[in-house]
Amino acid sequence: METIILKLTCKDKKGIIAKISSFIYEHSGNIVNLDQYTDKEKNLFFMRLEWEESGFDINEANIDKNFAKFLSINNINGDFSIYFSKNMQKCAIFVSKYDHCLFDILLRHKSGELKCQVPLIISNHIDLEKIAKYFNIDFYHLPIDIQNKEKTEKKQIDLLKKYNIDFVVLARYMQIVSANFISFYPNKIINIHHSFLPAFKGAKPYHQAYERGVKIIGATSHFVTEQLDQGPIIMQDIIHVSHKDNIDSMIIKGRDIERRVLSNAVNLYIENRIFLCENRTIIL
Amino acid sequence: METIILKLTCKDKKGIIAKISSFIYEHSGNIVNLDQYTDKEKNLFFMRLEWEESGFDINEANIDKNFAKFLSINNINGDFSIYFSKNMQKCAIFVSKYDHCLFDILLRHKSGELKCQVPLIISNHIDLEKIAKYFNIDFYHLPIDIQNKEKTEKKQIDLLKKYNIDFVVLARYMQIVSANFISFYPNKIINIHHSFLPAFKGAKPYHQAYERGVKIIGATSHFVTEQLDQGPIIMQDIIHVSHKDNIDSMIIKGRDIERRVLSNAVNLYIENRIFLCENRTIIL
Amino acid sequence: METIILKLTCKDKKGIIAKISSFIYEHSGNIVNLDQYTDKEKNLFFMRLEWEESGFDINEANIDKNFAKFLSINNINGDFSIYFSKNMQKCAIFVSKYDHCLFDILLRHKSGELKCQVPLIISNHIDLEKIAKYFNIDFYHLPIDIQNKEKTEKKQIDLLKKYNIDFVVLARYMQIVSANFISFYPNKIINIHHSFLPAFKGAKPYHQAYERGVKIIGATSHFVTEQLDQGPIIMQDIIHVSHKDNIDSMIIKGRDIERRVLSNAVNLYIENRIFLCENRTIIL
Amino acid sequence: METIILKLTCKDKKGIIAKISSFIYEHSGNIVNLDQYTDKEKNLFFMRLEWEESGFDINEANIDKNFAKFLSINNINGDFSIYFSKNMQKCAIFVSKYDHCLFDILLRHKSGELKCQVPLIISNHIDLEKIAKYFNIDFYHLPIDIQNKEKTEKKQIDLLKKYNIDFVVLARYMQIVSANFISFYPNKIINIHHSFLPAFKGAKPYHQAYERGVKIIGATSHFVTEQLDQGPIIMQDIIHVSHKDNIDSMIIKGRDIERRVLSNAVNLYIENRIFLCENRTIIL
Repeated sequence: METIILKLTCKDKKGIIAKISSFIYEHSGNIVNLDQYTDKEKNLFFMRLEWEESGFDINEANIDKNFAKFLSINNINGDFSIYFSKNMQKCAIFVSKYDHCLFDILLRHKSGELKCQVPLIISNHIDLEKIAKYFNIDFYHLPIDIQNKEKTEKKQIDLLKKYNIDFVVLARYMQIVSANFISFYPNKIINIHHSFLPAFKGAKPYHQAYERGVKIIGATSHFVTEQLDQGPIIMQDIIHVSHKDNIDSMIIKGRDIERRVLSNAVNLYIENRIFLCENRTIIL
Repeated sequence: METIILKLTCKDKKGIIAKISSFIYEHSGNIVNLDQYTDKEKNLFFMRLEWEESGFDINEANIDKNFAKFLSINNINGDFSIYFSKNMQKCAIFVSKYDHCLFDILLRHKSGELKCQVPLIISNHIDLEKIAKYFNIDFYHLPIDIQNKEKTEKKQIDLLKKYNIDFVVLARYMQIVSANFISFYPNKIINIHHSFLPAFKGAKPYHQAYERGVKIIGATSHFVTEQLDQGPIIMQDIIHVSHKDNIDSMIIKGRDIERRVLSNAVNLYIENRIFLCENRTIIL
Repeated sequence: METIILKLTCKDKKGIIAKISSFIYEHSGNIVNLDQYTDKEKNLFFMRLEWEESGFDINEANIDKNFAKFLSINNINGDFSIYFSKNMQKCAIFVSKYDHCLFDILLRHKSGELKCQVPLIISNHIDLEKIAKYFNIDFYHLPIDIQNKEKTEKKQIDLLKKYNIDFVVLARYMQIVSANFISFYPNKIINIHHSFLPAFKGAKPYHQAYERGVKIIGATSHFVTEQLDQGPIIMQDIIHVSHKDNIDSMIIKGRDIERRVLSNAVNLYIENRIFLCENRTIIL
Repeated sequence: METIILKLTCKDKKGIIAKISSFIYEHSGNIVNLDQYTDKEKNLFFMRLEWEESGFDINEANIDKNFAKFLSINNINGDFSIYFSKNMQKCAIFVSKYDHCLFDILLRHKSGELKCQVPLIISNHIDLEKIAKYFNIDFYHLPIDIQNKEKTEKKQIDLLKKYNIDFVVLARYMQIVSANFISFYPNKIINIHHSFLPAFKGAKPYHQAYERGVKIIGATSHFVTEQLDQGPIIMQDIIHVSHKDNIDSMIIKGRDIERRVLSNAVNLYIENRIFLCENRTIIL
């Protein structure tokens, strides 16, 4: 069953749900999911509304214009976006040498769990090309170093444009992307950091965790912003470790949560469930 | 902030959300939460709608009549109930000799986490009277055996009526309640069973778990029905055990999940979040 | 660092640890791990002892004979087995059409997490041959039905012998293996069942779980015995589900725990950590 | 069954287990548990050895002297301590106004889960005196402020001495204890911090967590050292939160893990399972 999904963020006031659900009803739409959240402090209203495409009497070409007009007439001031489930979003995956997150995404994609397209993999190393081949995905090897970083990012962006990429997943990419790069995909780049942020930011978090003698290790998926490892958090999880774990065994155990936390964040993104409220995510 | 909560179960059709949210809006209600679920197979629609009491222009005395009329006019066929958060529900707790679940509920109640009234504790043993006293709650000691069961249940029901009890919590009560007793509180009696049902129904589940050599033990909160341990499940959780655990240590570990799973179920009940769909619960 | 691992099960009595650790010491062995458990009820002692091969003055050819003699002299009556970590065990994987458990084992194997050899994959379907090729593992397609079952199992056993297989993993194999087959690998066949046993034995456990309206689903790895899904449990885990989950989403969520619970059980087996005490496992 | 427990930390070398287990055997001791860990990097060996008191032929008065002599003869250089399970350790609990951790410890103590004595509760507020009375424990109200801190800590220490207290539990005490105070109970003061350290050190961790927009909140039990919230970590756990959680609901959810993580740390301490290796704990 194909659906249409509305994401709306606006100033809160009485009657928003009534008006919008009536709008859908008047256009013969059958609502299948309505999730909303109000941030009382900031007086902001967030809504994810999903209805069946079948029977709905506004078509894709006109929906944005019509809905904007409807909001304007009803004095609802906010941002919205509308997605048709039949138009699967296009994802590019950036990797380095670690394969566990890449494999996890591609296997979930192949099984139908992740409903997006994955036409493009970019890496600064050649190692994972074989995996791309196995899954029949285009792979570009773009080595990166301090000297060529600007040029290489330019090539990356050209590829993203060429493939009409909607969002980017850094699947243990191990490189810091520039502010310029981020500006092309604001809040559309998902990273996995292998610690329970804000603890152990930056390099070698398992080493840091080992040094501190913690009894849990974690993984955090978040949107990439200019501040390293400080973007809005999408999902986090942990597993327990003990004194028996050294850095090597933490790395092994960590893979299990890294891949799961990243793939789940990708799924939330694809399903258009993630909203932003300053540096926090609202998951509807 | 006091709110009004509507629970509605009805045949699914287009426009229900639009019509009901418009009804609230027309009566100056400000919706703070709307959760809904559609069972496609059974074509049933479930909704929990919560709006601010302040400003809403229908009072408590008229709300049921008015809303029933509204449903009738709109050809929405279903069952509904409406709660005012200011009217806290009255809970009676039945216990035997184990104190961990009782303490947990009473401490959460005292801290304000469980927003209900607890005017009455009934037990077939005198042991926990001291706890009732500490928390200033009336305690009745009604010994029960095969001979006096019918009479004792009669006394219990009289007490429940006298105290205007809305729902009953069996906090490790260790007695099977009769079909007659249940008929006074249908789907209003919450039990905690100390296993992950449907495994290890009936007596001594930790002994059964030990015998089978399982690596997890669990707890299940459910509504009491005539079929022992087969009522609709509200919540379940587990903890890991190992070969080192014997029955005694399972009992100790189990207390932690029993009390948490029961208290959380009570909280879901108090917040009017639990719907029934045959033998399954929908938690909105 | 290569090690030698002793697994011992014997009647409990005073002095066993002292005598055995002294034996290792007298032969210049450096103990790196000693784990033991005593079942008081059955008066049985279980020990896993691991020491460095380097420096130890009994070689592989003589160790079994020497240790048996030592036990005999000291009146320690029990069963033992001794493994050299340098001799990696050989694993055969049986699959049907589901690929998630197979991929998980092979990826962990490739990354060095699972320290065994995997020379052989057998399937009743051709679907997963491509995966075997990707990982360079021999793949045999042996279709099975009621008529040819006995013959096919004969072929399977011939292959296991030919490849010198030490233990078998049923990675969602979907077929019941016969008592005759089991007799060739007693307590050496590891299965994954997609429920928290003993709940939902047999076919379609997610369907059973959905029907019962449970709030958790699970996976259980266990040794295969003649009684279906009743063999000794090695590991179990669960995840939470809600009324929103239908059978399809349970199947998707379930994959995550199935693969993890099976791979972890395989790892415990490879590390020689699993002992049996009637129908229960002791994990040292 | 009463037991004797040895805790030993020493330089690693061959034969330690053999020699010590032989020593126990020669004195007719029956070992019931042996757990050990070797820190390869620091070349340190840690062992917790537990044997039955019954039948062991060295009495309490002589055991320390005899064992020290034995170590000396065998050139084992290290620190050890020996406990008799029949001598339950004495615990003092420091609290402020929050009652959930205090109740949890006292209920587990009363049920026999925590095998220690709790003769003394000290608080800077009078609020929880009633709980102390309920459980028949001496309660001292010692208000504390910047001016009287030194004097008040002096009074606290006098009380700890008077009651022969072995270790101190800060059960949400909300005060920073001085270096001088700590010097009387080095690595014998257990604190609960309501975050997953090292994230959110210091005051108001739930507020910090809310600000950062994390998806998990945690609790950490640790030994108190001069560096605030930086002592060796004993145990940690987390629960998931969402955008729906505000600071109040985080505080409520947090109580569940705070009390569990603290009580479990106390249990590990009582069972003499916690070793220190610089700023890390080894739990045997």
